[in-house]
Amino acid sequence: MWTIDLNSDLGESFGDWKMGMDEDVMASISSSNVACGWHAGDAVVMLGTVRAARARGVAVGAHPGYPDLMGFGRRAMTCTPNELYAYTLYQSGALAAVCRSEGLELQHVKPHGAMYNQAAKDPKMAEAIARAVRALGGDVVLMGLAGSAFEAAAAEAGVPFAAEAFVDRGYMPDGTLVPRSQPGAFIHDPQTAAARMVRLVKEGKITAADGSELHLKAQSICVHGDNPEAVAMARTVRTVLEGEGIAIRPLRESKR
Amino acid sequence: MWTIDLNSDLGESFGDWKMGMDEDVMASISSSNVACGWHAGDAVVMLGTVRAARARGVAVGAHPGYPDLMGFGRRAMTCTPNELYAYTLYQSGALAAVCRSEGLELQHVKPHGAMYNQAAKDPKMAEAIARAVRALGGDVVLMGLAGSAFEAAAAEAGVPFAAEAFVDRGYMPDGTLVPRSQPGAFIHDPQTAAARMVRLVKEGKITAADGSELHLKAQSICVHGDNPEAVAMARTVRTVLEGEGIAIRPLRESKR
Amino acid sequence: MWTIDLNSDLGESFGDWKMGMDEDVMASISSSNVACGWHAGDAVVMLGTVRAARARGVAVGAHPGYPDLMGFGRRAMTCTPNELYAYTLYQSGALAAVCRSEGLELQHVKPHGAMYNQAAKDPKMAEAIARAVRALGGDVVLMGLAGSAFEAAAAEAGVPFAAEAFVDRGYMPDGTLVPRSQPGAFIHDPQTAAARMVRLVKEGKITAADGSELHLKAQSICVHGDNPEAVAMARTVRTVLEGEGIAIRPLRESKR
Amino acid sequence: MWTIDLNSDLGESFGDWKMGMDEDVMASISSSNVACGWHAGDAVVMLGTVRAARARGVAVGAHPGYPDLMGFGRRAMTCTPNELYAYTLYQSGALAAVCRSEGLELQHVKPHGAMYNQAAKDPKMAEAIARAVRALGGDVVLMGLAGSAFEAAAAEAGVPFAAEAFVDRGYMPDGTLVPRSQPGAFIHDPQTAAARMVRLVKEGKITAADGSELHLKAQSICVHGDNPEAVAMARTVRTVLEGEGIAIRPLRESKR
Repeated sequence: MWTIDLNSDLGESFGDWKMGMDEDVMASISSSNVACGWHAGDAVVMLGTVRAARARGVAVGAHPGYPDLMGFGRRAMTCTPNELYAYTLYQSGALAAVCRSEGLELQHVKPHGAMYNQAAKDPKMAEAIARAVRALGGDVVLMGLAGSAFEAAAAEAGVPFAAEAFVDRGYMPDGTLVPRSQPGAFIHDPQTAAARMVRLVKEGKITAADGSELHLKAQSICVHGDNPEAVAMARTVRTVLEGEGIAIRPLRESKR
Repeated sequence: MWTIDLNSDLGESFGDWKMGMDEDVMASISSSNVACGWHAGDAVVMLGTVRAARARGVAVGAHPGYPDLMGFGRRAMTCTPNELYAYTLYQSGALAAVCRSEGLELQHVKPHGAMYNQAAKDPKMAEAIARAVRALGGDVVLMGLAGSAFEAAAAEAGVPFAAEAFVDRGYMPDGTLVPRSQPGAFIHDPQTAAARMVRLVKEGKITAADGSELHLKAQSICVHGDNPEAVAMARTVRTVLEGEGIAIRPLRESKR
Repeated sequence: MWTIDLNSDLGESFGDWKMGMDEDVMASISSSNVACGWHAGDAVVMLGTVRAARARGVAVGAHPGYPDLMGFGRRAMTCTPNELYAYTLYQSGALAAVCRSEGLELQHVKPHGAMYNQAAKDPKMAEAIARAVRALGGDVVLMGLAGSAFEAAAAEAGVPFAAEAFVDRGYMPDGTLVPRSQPGAFIHDPQTAAARMVRLVKEGKITAADGSELHLKAQSICVHGDNPEAVAMARTVRTVLEGEGIAIRPLRESKR
Repeated sequence: MWTIDLNSDLGESFGDWKMGMDEDVMASISSSNVACGWHAGDAVVMLGTVRAARARGVAVGAHPGYPDLMGFGRRAMTCTPNELYAYTLYQSGALAAVCRSEGLELQHVKPHGAMYNQAAKDPKMAEAIARAVRALGGDVVLMGLAGSAFEAAAAEAGVPFAAEAFVDRGYMPDGTLVPRSQPGAFIHDPQTAAARMVRLVKEGKITAADGSELHLKAQSICVHGDNPEAVAMARTVRTVLEGEGIAIRPLRESKR
């Protein structure tokens, strides 16, 4: 039987500011990446998000980011490995406690924004994050880009790794994402996106931007929930996947 | 055999700013209240403080505060019980993860500054904090002013409570502290302070500002480490207590 | 000829978080109270808001608040007069520079949220804020609740004062607002609200919650722009006022 | 008659955290670069620093930095030119208002830390900062590394520029600083440093790390005040310069 995890970034409201259509996208996903207060989210938002996730049967992961609320954690910053280790531990630990308070265990850690993008290419950064995940204990999974520095760092640190694919992004023949500025960077049509994901799950293949076949292994598919089109795409992808006999399951159940 | 815990606020540096004589006061105490990043401390400072505490055999507790770095958490703020619950859970959870990463268990939670002062008198605030401590699991202790709302809230929530006495403060006949603006608010002489604490531990009594005898039960004594005089007083108190056959032990060992 | 100023809080977005219907409400108002980065707004948002206000011919005032982004500046805090003075000067000065960069002069300062509410009743707080407004130079106006501590503080400091009335709030016979928890606190019907404001401008009278006549002098009317109903009410009020021969003008033109 | 400006970073305390020996170094300098609340300093600290500078006859400049209190503005960040423009305007405007409140005019703007280092090499960043300085009005001077992108950007924007030299740093033959990791990066001996600065002022020359002669024009010399050795060096440099007939004057008086 085929299974796959669907993940989405949630809990990105802050104080009086609302962001995202969390309630809507939660109906389609099996895992959530919950902001931990540094680039988005705050303690009260985190608590509400974890409660909603538990009620929906959605697993909870930490989505730690840079200390840059003003830039939403999307701006590259020069942090030392020791800083990254401490930042990941702090934010994930805070969310782990919120999870535990609601009877859940933290499932995974997926770095956010610029921290994700920089560490995916930087072994020292990825290694610091992987060590922090290990330090959390409890077999917490590190989630990151398939084939990136995260994968090697997780193996080195002895923590479980979940490779993620992006439902709405084009791929280069080498498995990296088509840069946002280039044609083919985005897949807009939900049916096309869903069909690509079915093939990814069943055959481990996806068609790259140049038409070539790319082998790609993913344990999770990242969908979005920040606008109505994204939510609709997530719903379509889930429906199509299930129609093809693929079960949507959180990481700990779907890990193969 | 007599035992008592000595606690002090540590880890109050932030970024490039140094505060406190942590290394010095650690030699005299058995428990530390470590700032959790909202009024002081940051993730890197917390990690360094926990490592130093572990090396010294000092137990670690969380010292959560208001989100007020500019005011050091010392300014009264109007927070809802839900906010207080989430703030305590978040900050203590972050520190608990740092502790666990170093092989320690979080021992206690002691609110900081204005959060401490407001909640000590406000049953709803104290109750929210006590519930957060319970939600942390693992028999974490709530530490607070003897005879305050914290004590009742801890009992109600079913979490262990540690009453603390202040080494350098005068007491009113009703067990509250002499207000800082009044004569007798502070005990400056280390020997006098130490002698008061010996009597407190052995007889459960302390002489109030009006000369009357006050019955006071405390599981911990709060000493300071932010200046040389405070560190010297802490050292004297420890020496005198030990000379009187009183063992200095963390809460979990000294709880009676 | 009758004139009145209509003011609304603008520029309350922060980073990636959007708030308010600034573009829509700007069509109805003559003065804006622009958040200055401490409870809402950030430097980039401020710049965009000032540019939009200039393009619309809307005067710009500073809307300084407590350093409490997480609580949107709505939580009471205990600040010293010296802190309030410095906070008001800093935030208003930052906005004044943004105004000047776009060829505008800062028109007024209106404290936000809890700072407004606490200072309206506390002469020492109001006085600190009024001194900061004077220190800004350039005849900047202090805007605040009619009959509050702001009015006396402005007179004392020698700064111009603009009393504001609230379009959607009920009044007690003594001129204070009906508390939010009591019946009559809010006026929901735009036509009713508009009619009350016409009478306020022309006769200096408003009907209090107990049916009595209240004498009220206001140089500005506060309308809201955070939801479609509020924007519609602002539009109705402007249309009705203009239909009654009342010109909507910024403070500096309408001051009588 | 020879004149030169001596500048130093001041006002880097934050809340309860003290940093720097401001009072001591102020005796030796003619211009201060005052932190503006984003990487260091806060509104109350700024006010106190400006008052102290005025009392000492020290001119005041803004020292804007990245929004990174935790990293003291020393970490590279990817900001857009629009962000840099708004950040510089906001922070400098806030300090300008504090200056004006004390009867001073803001003299200059000198970016801090990573903002300084990144913009010195990046014409688009330098240009955004120079435009912000122009937008402040009042002939505010942009201060930056001699021969850097700041100089061209200031010329382009039509704002006065003050090149600064570093009292304690070695120079490469091309006028850049010897990297901190290389030998010759730092000049530790106050007399040596002072002699170099005398020659710089009188002859416009300094001996580079390879022994060659470097032509360098500077309107200001940067000294430090964060430790006793730095303060002693500043004092020695001032004494030696004055002994050589060189007057220490703020930028506006010394500009040639």
